[in-house]
Amino acid sequence: MSEDSESVVIHGLVCPLPLVHDSTVVLGHGSGGKMTHDLITGRFYPPLANDDLLRGDDAAVLVSPGGERLALSTDSHIVSPLFFHGGDIGRLAVCGTVNDLAVMGARPQWLTAGFILEEGLPMYLLEQVLNSMQAAAEEAGVRIVAGDTKVVERGKADGLFINTAGVGWIPQGREVGGAYARPGDAVLVSGPIGNHGIAVLCARGELQFETEIESDVAPLNGLVEALFESCSTVHTLRDPTRGGVATTLNEIAHQSGVSIRLEESSIPVEEPVLAACEMLGFDPLYVANEGKLIIVLPDNLAETALGAIRSKPYGKGACRIGTVEEGEAGRVLMHTAIGGTRVVDVLAGEMLPRIC
Amino acid sequence: MSEDSESVVIHGLVCPLPLVHDSTVVLGHGSGGKMTHDLITGRFYPPLANDDLLRGDDAAVLVSPGGERLALSTDSHIVSPLFFHGGDIGRLAVCGTVNDLAVMGARPQWLTAGFILEEGLPMYLLEQVLNSMQAAAEEAGVRIVAGDTKVVERGKADGLFINTAGVGWIPQGREVGGAYARPGDAVLVSGPIGNHGIAVLCARGELQFETEIESDVAPLNGLVEALFESCSTVHTLRDPTRGGVATTLNEIAHQSGVSIRLEESSIPVEEPVLAACEMLGFDPLYVANEGKLIIVLPDNLAETALGAIRSKPYGKGACRIGTVEEGEAGRVLMHTAIGGTRVVDVLAGEMLPRIC
Repeated sequence: MSEDSESVVIHGLVCPLPLVHDSTVVLGHGSGGKMTHDLITGRFYPPLANDDLLRGDDAAVLVSPGGERLALSTDSHIVSPLFFHGGDIGRLAVCGTVNDLAVMGARPQWLTAGFILEEGLPMYLLEQVLNSMQAAAEEAGVRIVAGDTKVVERGKADGLFINTAGVGWIPQGREVGGAYARPGDAVLVSGPIGNHGIAVLCARGELQFETEIESDVAPLNGLVEALFESCSTVHTLRDPTRGGVATTLNEIAHQSGVSIRLEESSIPVEEPVLAACEMLGFDPLYVANEGKLIIVLPDNLAETALGAIRSKPYGKGACRIGTVEEGEAGRVLMHTAIGGTRVVDVLAGEMLPRIC
Repeated sequence: MSEDSESVVIHGLVCPLPLVHDSTVVLGHGSGGKMTHDLITGRFYPPLANDDLLRGDDAAVLVSPGGERLALSTDSHIVSPLFFHGGDIGRLAVCGTVNDLAVMGARPQWLTAGFILEEGLPMYLLEQVLNSMQAAAEEAGVRIVAGDTKVVERGKADGLFINTAGVGWIPQGREVGGAYARPGDAVLVSGPIGNHGIAVLCARGELQFETEIESDVAPLNGLVEALFESCSTVHTLRDPTRGGVATTLNEIAHQSGVSIRLEESSIPVEEPVLAACEMLGFDPLYVANEGKLIIVLPDNLAETALGAIRSKPYGKGACRIGTVEEGEAGRVLMHTAIGGTRVVDVLAGEMLPRIC
């Protein structure tokens, strides 16, 4: 970091705002990285703490009065702009919550949708977003069963924010969570990374070149079902959204008290995404995905799992990217393409604000 | 309404904006009244329609794979200012969702909380809101089990928006809903109306006199439990929030295909609220409440029900305000204090924006 408190350099970007600031909220608090983690653990956990919340998974796993296991999650969506190549805020809002449920092993069933509309939002944009939500809900096999709509004055919101919460049911025998990764486990990813973040950046007109990069935003519950049909044991599932694969793997390593070692040459990144990242000084490991799955499971099931998910459209590019090791708890190391080893830390500040 | 499309008079207020506007979202779409209804039925229902959503109750009533009945609801909170006499956005966010579940006969159990923070929000304000949420959750006996935090740039939100979604379980034998009111039923209210809306208005400094009016924001699940303990049959419960008692009763009359007749002299309004309403040209029947229950149940249970809820702190001022009649479906009539009869319609435009 720079010595100047008005300007810090993080991931190659000069950030004009002080990113660490004790007394007010700053954009970095929404990054999904270290500052978000500090905000959650430092400000939200002390008053709200309970066992379910503290587990820190993508959805809470709860037990009904009759003994059924359900997953419950929530996500607010503030992506800017509302529409981008490959998706929009509506598809994002449905898929985000579907995926948070699916990575707990749940079969997503019902969603709620809460809308905050800015006065002046054109109705045809709202309708496009609603149509997109419904299409995504149908694709995922979920229903939007309850909603709420609020309107704020012009200039008090940015067009449209959508919160989705969701309920899914966890079939017997599925025990997945961030804390279940074990030394020796294989670490898989369901396809090339970084597309979503770069697609949103393109839609803002912030790239100086033409590109066809599409967001990967997609519901992953089909992929999760295919995985459980073929593999008896899956330890951890997670979708690497804000903070990217690097931050997600750090969370898993921390929750499970293990190390994770990555092979840089195995990490799939499409050529245009790589080119955009190089130009912008981004590391694709920190760029958000909205349709990718990180899978941690016993080494001897890795090939079976890869076969199962490669048979699905959203899992075609699946591959193994690393291994869980005993080592220092919470540490992620990468064997680099040029033969060295480096620590892969969590995202420190804010790289791409408002990408979901 | 005025002939001038730039200025309409609704509920005694001259509104400078065209309140009916086909092509963009306007503040009136968030009123909870006719414009909200038109937005929901005209724009949201066509793409999203399914039986659960179309029922139009405060929460969806759903059945788990194992046959348990649950209620699921969502509410986004955008109240301005964040703090007001008797409450704040945090207490409101918890109570709003607890009450939406309770009025379906459910026992609220879990909440999710999604935060949209504006860059620059002072941390101490966030902490006050979180403490208030936790206190309200403890009072209601619910747990906040999942959360999400997003940050938007300065000027792209208004301090802090909170979405809460909730799950509750419906005990066997409870069958309540907006469509179950029957001719002959008594219509009760759990206490004096209009306090919340006027308290928020006071907090904005829009009154020219000093007042001690407090918001009634409170969790109503205790009141609902007391009601079911004493009464075997309850037809409809609802909390009259945006749009007030008038709009809520219109919704019930419409959903149940009945008329409702009110006695103006029986409708409880505290003196300072009445004074503020008279000064501002408001009708307290249209002012939002956040801790009041409308109860519709067989006439012969009315006194038992009143006794049960008056025994609870939030039901001390309960009384009977009207009767369900056969008459024209969807019509609410009021026998006025001066001896006439008038139609009580839904709120037409926007009276008090951003009161929840």
